[in-house]
Order: sequence, then structure tokens, then C-alpha cells
Amino acid sequence: MRILILGFCAFCLWGCGSKGGDSGVKVEKSTAVFDWKMVTTWPKNFPGLGTAPEDFANMVRQMSGGRLNIKVFGAGQLLPPFEVFDAVSQGTAEMGHGAAYYWAGKARGAEFFATVPFGLNAQEMSSWIHHGGGLQLWREMYQPFGLRPFAAGNTGVQMAGWYNREINSMADIVGLKMRIPGLGAEVLSRAGALAVNMPAGEIYTAMQTGVIDATEWVGPYNDLALGLHQVAEYYYYPGWHEPGVVAELIVNVKSFDSLSPDLQVIVEVAARAINQNMLDEYTAKNNQALKELVKAHGVKVRRLPESVLLELRNIANKVISEQANQTELTRRVAASLEKFKSEVMAYHSISEEAFYKARRAD
Amino acid sequence: MRILILGFCAFCLWGCGSKGGDSGVKVEKSTAVFDWKMVTTWPKNFPGLGTAPEDFANMVRQMSGGRLNIKVFGAGQLLPPFEVFDAVSQGTAEMGHGAAYYWAGKARGAEFFATVPFGLNAQEMSSWIHHGGGLQLWREMYQPFGLRPFAAGNTGVQMAGWYNREINSMADIVGLKMRIPGLGAEVLSRAGALAVNMPAGEIYTAMQTGVIDATEWVGPYNDLALGLHQVAEYYYYPGWHEPGVVAELIVNVKSFDSLSPDLQVIVEVAARAINQNMLDEYTAKNNQALKELVKAHGVKVRRLPESVLLELRNIANKVISEQANQTELTRRVAASLEKFKSEVMAYHSISEEAFYKARRAD
Repeated sequence: MRILILGFCAFCLWGCGSKGGDSGVKVEKSTAVFDWKMVTTWPKNFPGLGTAPEDFANMVRQMSGGRLNIKVFGAGQLLPPFEVFDAVSQGTAEMGHGAAYYWAGKARGAEFFATVPFGLNAQEMSSWIHHGGGLQLWREMYQPFGLRPFAAGNTGVQMAGWYNREINSMADIVGLKMRIPGLGAEVLSRAGALAVNMPAGEIYTAMQTGVIDATEWVGPYNDLALGLHQVAEYYYYPGWHEPGVVAELIVNVKSFDSLSPDLQVIVEVAARAINQNMLDEYTAKNNQALKELVKAHGVKVRRLPESVLLELRNIANKVISEQANQTELTRRVAASLEKFKSEVMAYHSISEEAFYKARRAD
Repeated sequence: MRILILGFCAFCLWGCGSKGGDSGVKVEKSTAVFDWKMVTTWPKNFPGLGTAPEDFANMVRQMSGGRLNIKVFGAGQLLPPFEVFDAVSQGTAEMGHGAAYYWAGKARGAEFFATVPFGLNAQEMSSWIHHGGGLQLWREMYQPFGLRPFAAGNTGVQMAGWYNREINSMADIVGLKMRIPGLGAEVLSRAGALAVNMPAGEIYTAMQTGVIDATEWVGPYNDLALGLHQVAEYYYYPGWHEPGVVAELIVNVKSFDSLSPDLQVIVEVAARAINQNMLDEYTAKNNQALKELVKAHGVKVRRLPESVLLELRNIANKVISEQANQTELTRRVAASLEKFKSEVMAYHSISEEAFYKARRAD
């Protein structure tokens, strides 16, 4: 962080009051310029996940009139992707962009702020975070690490992943070596798979060399970009394990507190803007990519059998209960999510879901 | 609008470049303070629709350090709600907040930017506007009026409305005097209803006095606030006519162009933030309100019969085709929407919709 004291100024950026003041009055004001680093878990400029932080940085620079300049680093450029949390916590970088389930080994229960198997979709997660108490709990969980979290993107409902064999029953999951993060990994482990996590940049090679034989990543728009159709034949839906993954912005609290109030609000509002814009991008781009995967690359799209989805949901319920029981805070987080889910499922059954049905019914 | 030239300043808000400049250099800069008026079509501080513009004004004031101060007026405070479009076009107020279908009599095809019967839901509308070409078309449509539109809120899928009799077949729609705006009004007219439009503030009295005998407004959270359960017995779903109404921010182009680039981006990003935040609020609040309507007030919730929904959809398709054929621009708007809908329906059938089904299946 670099702060320049630029001297006396006839107009202070904030705090002058809404009437602007008198041009004859000289206000002594330190005008700080911040050059910040943002480290991310995504390949530099990766569609959606990686371009959203760049959009964020551009918006913040423009809104702040060049007073807050954020340089975005892709995975591995400054540090390995899974070191983002610690780096921002320690102040090596002022900001990070990733997903909370990558930090569950450090902040217990963090995965609840990314996505929950059979949990909330994108619209519902954003609502829980911003109007259902989620954000307060998330801040409480990250406070011991000196981090302030913001929702900053969402993928929408993902695909269930890439496989080299058909999944006709639970028996076909046994023995799978699959890349999958978060609570979904725990569910698949209990179903007999060997679940491993790795960042985006390693998935293709791991599939190609047989280190893993199945993987999920995001959805057609992103999976096409990673080239996963070159290393697997079957593409399954729906993404039961990740129905609306929240991308997170984390900010070092001391750095955040050093910002003037206007810059703090600029950071918060810009995060909100990319939180929606990333979802808008996925929503617009996924189908074109899916058509390309099927028509140009011969990918076979399959629905997971009802019996498999039901069994996975049963396992998921047990996993969620156990993860909820780790600490007093995880209990409160899980209870808040569960209450919200029950309410929103009731209303969405007669609104969003009933509308989807009415729109396409023959 | 009031512009104060505050004199010389050692630091310019934008354009200094990211390195902040040299404290020894004095930069001559006009630092303008704007006191703007925003007129809205909603009752002052009405939940969601009316609080979003207030949130917007607060965010803009904070992000601009008090340089852009927007005073929000509710319907009727400065001018009647349906005069918002003309007032902002003429510069009586710099900004307005409403919904595009209120202006279809002035800007042909404007209703396509609010909502279309059996069209796109909130997530899809935001995606079409921001990543599917919608915003460019919307700007083109409002350009002759000297207005710049922004998406600034969404209600999500609405309810089909309030009735004093059960709707068991299309015959029950014949003769209904119903408050309903936009393309939905045209659909119901062709089904034999007498469709009329009126702003929120007039609906309750119109129902009470029998001027109308059915109405839609938004959904449980808003309809409870209007007290519609006191004037009707049956509450129908799903909101086929308004699956995701976009609330719009309109800005007088000359006023917008008078803002410095940082303030222009602040306006744009704040609009984006309330675009999501309003939907987040409705998503969180609707079910609690619905429970109150049912348990405390005895409202009878009903689903429109499949046969009625199918027939309404057939009529809607004809109405949309005709409305699309008004001008060269409306043809392009409708074609863009139709293409987007076809793509997004295909993908959402295997993602959002398939997930809803997997989440609740027994």
C-alpha cells in the first residue's frame, strides 16, 4: 500500500457535507492513493471467474477517480491458488478472489458460504447472504483471520461433471477418482469415490494422465475453455453438488479500514455489481458452449438417474448435519441456511419453479 | 442541478492517472456538486420498489463523497406517477424510477424491457440486458426521448393476482374488470377481460369501490403491504404475465453527460447493485408474507388450471408477434429476446429447472 499526501485541497472528497462547502474555505485533507494487489484462485482472465475480478478492479479505479488501483494476479502469478486466503490474511496482498469452500480446512464451515449440495441456487444464495443474515455470519467466521468477505460472483447451477463411463447406479460411483471440492467431495467419498481437490489449472493434465478419471469444474462455458471434452466422454447434469457457487472477494481488514468511507462503499458496491454480472455472463453463454460441445465435439449429455440423485441427497443430508455440528458458529450458520432454504423452497415452488413449468408445458 | 466551482484543487478526482501525481503540482479542476431530483412511480418508501431508489441515492451519495445528491420523490409528491417518463425526458427531474411497460404508449415496444408474458425470469432478463444485447436496444429506443435507461431492480416471478371468484376455465376470465399493465393486459383483453392500468396507490380503493373486481400487483411481500387481502379472497399463481419485471432507472441524457466520468460510472454501478438487491429482498421476504396472508388473513392460494395457462400462452404468443411488428426497432428487440429465450430455456431445463426438481423430489 502506498499513500501519497498530496497537500492542501480546496475540496475534500467526502465529509464536506452534501452542500459542497464554500470555495473560499481551504480544507486540509490527506488524499491517499492506494495501489493494491488482488490474488485469485483462477487462471488469469479465465472466462467469468477470472474476468469478474478484472471488471471489479476497472470499476473501482473509475469510480474512485484513480485513487484505488487494484492489480489482479491470476493463479500462480504471485502465489499458488490455494494460498490466497493466507496471503490476504497476512497482508501479502490486500485482496483475494476465490470461493469459500477452498478454505474449509482453515475456517471451519466456510464451505457453507460457497455452496451446499441440494442447497440454494444463485438467486437464493444472494438473497440469504444479503437479506437472510448470511453476510453477518460470514463476517463473523472470517473475523479471526483479519478478513472481510463479500459475495462477488456466482456460476449458477453447475453441471454434475465429466466421466469416462456412464453412471447408471451408485455402483458406478464406487472407485471413481474424481476432482470435486467442498461438501460435494465428502458426499462422493461416502458413496465410495476417491474425491480430490485441485485448482482449475491442474484438472486437464490430471485427467489426461489418469491421476483422476472424473471431474467437475463449472458448466459448459467454462468447461469448454478448459478443454475437458478432450479428456472425457460423458457430461452429466444437474449439478446437485454446486447449485449456485458464490465467488468471494476477501479484503484484509486492516487494509479495508485504511480506506476512506467513500472508497469502502465503492468496494462494497462494485462487489455487488460483479456478483450479478458474473451470473449474467454464465446465463448468457452456457447454452452456446453446450451446443458446441455436443455438435462440434460429440460430447454425450446425460441426466443422473433419479435413484442416484435421491441417494446422493440422503448422503448429503447426513454430511451437512455433521459439518454443521463442528462448532457453535457452524451450528448457527447451518441453522440459518436451513431455515432460509425451507422458506424459499416453499415460495419458489409456486413462483420460479411453477413458472418454468408453465412456460414450457405442451 | 446546482454546480459549484470550488476553485483550485491539488488533486483531481479522475484523470490524474493511477500514480497519483506530484503534490507540488496544482491542478485546476472544476469540482461540481449536483443536487438532483428522482421521481418515481411508486409510493414513497414502498417495500422493495420504493426502497431501492432510496438505497441507490444513499450509495451514490456515499460513493461520490457528497458530490451527487439525489432526492427521491414518491408517486404524487412532485408529479403523478405516470408522468415520470415525460418529466425526466423534459429535464423537470434528472432521474426517474419505474417500469418500462408504463411508457409503451410513448416509446413503442418499451414493454419488452419490463417483462413479457411467458418470457424471461429475473435471472434471464438481467442476463439478456447485460450480456445478450438488450441494453443496447433499450438505449436505442429511449434515445429519441433524451433518456438513458438502466436495469435497477427486479421483483422475481410475480403472483397471477387477486380475484373474488375462482378461475376454473377461460370462461371465468370473461367480463373481469382487472388492473394489469403491459402485454399481460393485452392478453387478458383478448380473453374477454376489461384490462385497465393504474398506479399502486389507486388499486386498493378501486377494488373496494368495485371499479375493478380483480387485480395483480407484485407478490406476497408487496401485496400484503397494499392490503389486497382485505378486498379479494383468492390469490392465484404463477405470474405467467410478469415472470421477472425489471424496474428501470431513467436518467436525462444531458444531465448524465454533465457528470464527470467517475460519477457516471458510480451511477451505472449503483444501478447494478440495486438491480440485484431488490430481487434479493423479494426472494427473502415473499414466503413470510405469504404465510401471514394465509394463516392470519385466510387468503385462499390457488394455481391457475393447466388449460387456462396453455390458452393464455397461445394468446400471448399472438400478442407478442403483433407487438413485435410495430416498427423496425420493435422487430429487432423481439427477435433478440426470442433468440435469447430459446437458448436460455434449453440450458435452464438441464440446470436451474432440473435442480429444482432434484432438490424436492421424493
